[in-house]
Amino acid sequence: MTVYWCELAWLGGPTAEAGVVVEVEDGRIATVTGGTLRPPPGARRLEGLTLPGLANAHSHAFQRALRGRTQHGSGSFWTWREQMYRVADGLDPESYLALARATYAEMALAGVTAVGEFHYLHHGAGGVPYGDPNEMSRALIAAAAEAGVRITLIDACYLHGGIGEPPAGPQRRFSDGSAEAWAERVEALRDEESVRIGAAIHSVRAVDPGAAAIVAGWALESDRPLHAHVSEQPAENHACLEAYGRTPTALLAEADAISARFTAVHATHLDDGDVTLLGGGGACCCVCPTTERDLADGIGQMRRLAEAGASLSLGSDSHAVIDLFEEARAVELDERLASGERGHNTAAALLRAASEDGHACLGWPDAGRIASEARADLVTVSLAGVRLAGTEPENAVQAVVFAAGAPDVRHVLVDGREIVRDGRHGTIDVARELHEAILRAAA
Amino acid sequence: MTVYWCELAWLGGPTAEAGVVVEVEDGRIATVTGGTLRPPPGARRLEGLTLPGLANAHSHAFQRALRGRTQHGSGSFWTWREQMYRVADGLDPESYLALARATYAEMALAGVTAVGEFHYLHHGAGGVPYGDPNEMSRALIAAAAEAGVRITLIDACYLHGGIGEPPAGPQRRFSDGSAEAWAERVEALRDEESVRIGAAIHSVRAVDPGAAAIVAGWALESDRPLHAHVSEQPAENHACLEAYGRTPTALLAEADAISARFTAVHATHLDDGDVTLLGGGGACCCVCPTTERDLADGIGQMRRLAEAGASLSLGSDSHAVIDLFEEARAVELDERLASGERGHNTAAALLRAASEDGHACLGWPDAGRIASEARADLVTVSLAGVRLAGTEPENAVQAVVFAAGAPDVRHVLVDGREIVRDGRHGTIDVARELHEAILRAAA
Repeated sequence: MTVYWCELAWLGGPTAEAGVVVEVEDGRIATVTGGTLRPPPGARRLEGLTLPGLANAHSHAFQRALRGRTQHGSGSFWTWREQMYRVADGLDPESYLALARATYAEMALAGVTAVGEFHYLHHGAGGVPYGDPNEMSRALIAAAAEAGVRITLIDACYLHGGIGEPPAGPQRRFSDGSAEAWAERVEALRDEESVRIGAAIHSVRAVDPGAAAIVAGWALESDRPLHAHVSEQPAENHACLEAYGRTPTALLAEADAISARFTAVHATHLDDGDVTLLGGGGACCCVCPTTERDLADGIGQMRRLAEAGASLSLGSDSHAVIDLFEEARAVELDERLASGERGHNTAAALLRAASEDGHACLGWPDAGRIASEARADLVTVSLAGVRLAGTEPENAVQAVVFAAGAPDVRHVLVDGREIVRDGRHGTIDVARELHEAILRAAA
Repeated sequence: MTVYWCELAWLGGPTAEAGVVVEVEDGRIATVTGGTLRPPPGARRLEGLTLPGLANAHSHAFQRALRGRTQHGSGSFWTWREQMYRVADGLDPESYLALARATYAEMALAGVTAVGEFHYLHHGAGGVPYGDPNEMSRALIAAAAEAGVRITLIDACYLHGGIGEPPAGPQRRFSDGSAEAWAERVEALRDEESVRIGAAIHSVRAVDPGAAAIVAGWALESDRPLHAHVSEQPAENHACLEAYGRTPTALLAEADAISARFTAVHATHLDDGDVTLLGGGGACCCVCPTTERDLADGIGQMRRLAEAGASLSLGSDSHAVIDLFEEARAVELDERLASGERGHNTAAALLRAASEDGHACLGWPDAGRIASEARADLVTVSLAGVRLAGTEPENAVQAVVFAAGAPDVRHVLVDGREIVRDGRHGTIDVARELHEAILRAAA
């Protein structure tokens, strides 16, 4: 039994509780007791605001190598994608393990306790499978374990280079050839204590309706999370409408993909029917605002989706930055830009997206909250730095959501293990490993 | 003579130069020599990317006390303003000095070497002048000196609570009663080595056209910068059109306010004629994207203004965050959200706004560039932290603009004086002073 005393802790309400004692045993929270204004003898003091573990629900780990390298010239999502493919094409299991390990360690420093890795870089050059056809998946799973975070390996089916087109160039590394072959490969992957296997329909561009139904059926039968990129760009909507006479969301609904196990990633350009389908199905919408802003995707309508019944999660996606606080506030701030009004999403609702609802969409319903029986994830944000100086207990939740940065995260506990202490990763020199892995990947 | 060796330095081009030796004498840069790959004996090593000093061209220092305190409930700019007025109303010269000193020190940590303080909180309770009617202005000037940054005290004329309305409540502290009285008061303020006095027309809401012409005339005769809040919110445009039959920009143009000495702050909601007036007049537009996003103001059109001939500067305004890198990239990123395209503004153009053009609009034409005879301001950004890990010399400018955070600033030299070393302010415990000053101001 380890006892933690939190100066302030967020237990899910609009404000923080002062003096919260959390008893941890075997990686789980045993008890949570508020109103304990002095630390009990022997308790570890967590000064600042302690949050539940944060879930980064949408990651393409290799894209960390693109940070600061795609900001010249003009272009669009589609020209950016060419640069992204070049990095993908250079990776092998060894170099990807190194890059993902460092990237997940950067996430750990930012308070991320579980990552959803939306993984499509499956095969070797030209699409030839590795000896173990899951070698890339296993590299990502190993990377997360070494970085100390849980992973949901969201293994993506990717068959086409565009609607009706074969995969071309680097896309050949993504394709299993058929949805059946995808399922057969993924069957060999197993859940572990810190690993969940999920499924993804990469997008309606890359997966035809018949294949989408197979992937969705597999997820249903094996009771696994199912994710898909949905309507990130208007061009995807146009192509889908032209080819199939319906929106990506409607097409996915027909493939029986939309349910409470489903997460629509981005969900930026939706019509009223799409909102009804996602909300009525109780789906999750994973928004990635820093990437969507970087890639000129547009502004989603999260309040509208939430009102329709959808839950919300957050991802750093291309890793232009890795900072879940910035993602969380951007949901609200971008809606302000679009609407001219403030206050669409409360700080507590944004934190719930970053924690409990993010974990749920990754298949960790027992994580993301500070409550007895939950996994013992604790993320302590210092209020003593210059960004948060002046914060008082009654505005700590607001202040952290709207003004904290990843560098304010001081301590991170994952399943009861202390991964980050005083802002440093326990086992990885994160900046050095990032530097080496990126130079290798971006060369 | 002090000699600095910059591992990388930005000298104004699209990329950084490697191995730049900067000789500093009497607060000025004497020589700049590139291509010196080994530090000369006795030189101070500046590792990372060294930038010229950054100018924070629009600040309301007291609003730092609002950070993290206005993010509950719903509302708009106008409901936020009520909270802002409550903080303003509680300040006196002593408490404002403490708050501004800590806020300017936070700016110094973020690489700001000159601040433009748009100052309208002139008088005591009920509008009664202090014994020295410039006591509040002098508190701000003292605060900047103690924090080690230059200040342009942009003294704002503020006469009306809205078009045709008398000032009410806390607004009475802002008003001098007439533009003539404003000018008489401001005449008593003097430029110093690290101080410039500028003028402001608070807005067309608060200054009628006749008074605006007086302020503009005073700025012209005394050769001083002139700033005004312009079209931050659609409601201002509507009220102005209704009262005067023209836009705020057109009204200011008729008052002879628009010239190369003029800075339009925000300039968010402009029509084609406004863009032509500001661009044709060679005015500066100071955008404050983090505040504009927080306050639901909307997205400006900076590329269009630049193409018309306007220059660009940046301000942290309400200090929701103080991070000029975040301001700079937000100019581009918000235009991406509005347009669906990337690459409206280059990293170098955004850095120029943050440095040379920002300084110019504050009346410091001799600052904001690393060049001989310029003021010796140097801001060194470490590339060794996790956010920027993986940066190479050829992408350092892009990476810093699009991915750096204020905590990456390691060393700051202002007029040859070392204000920040290894991320710490030389004389001020910034977080502690912020905390104390904010608790006092927000109480």
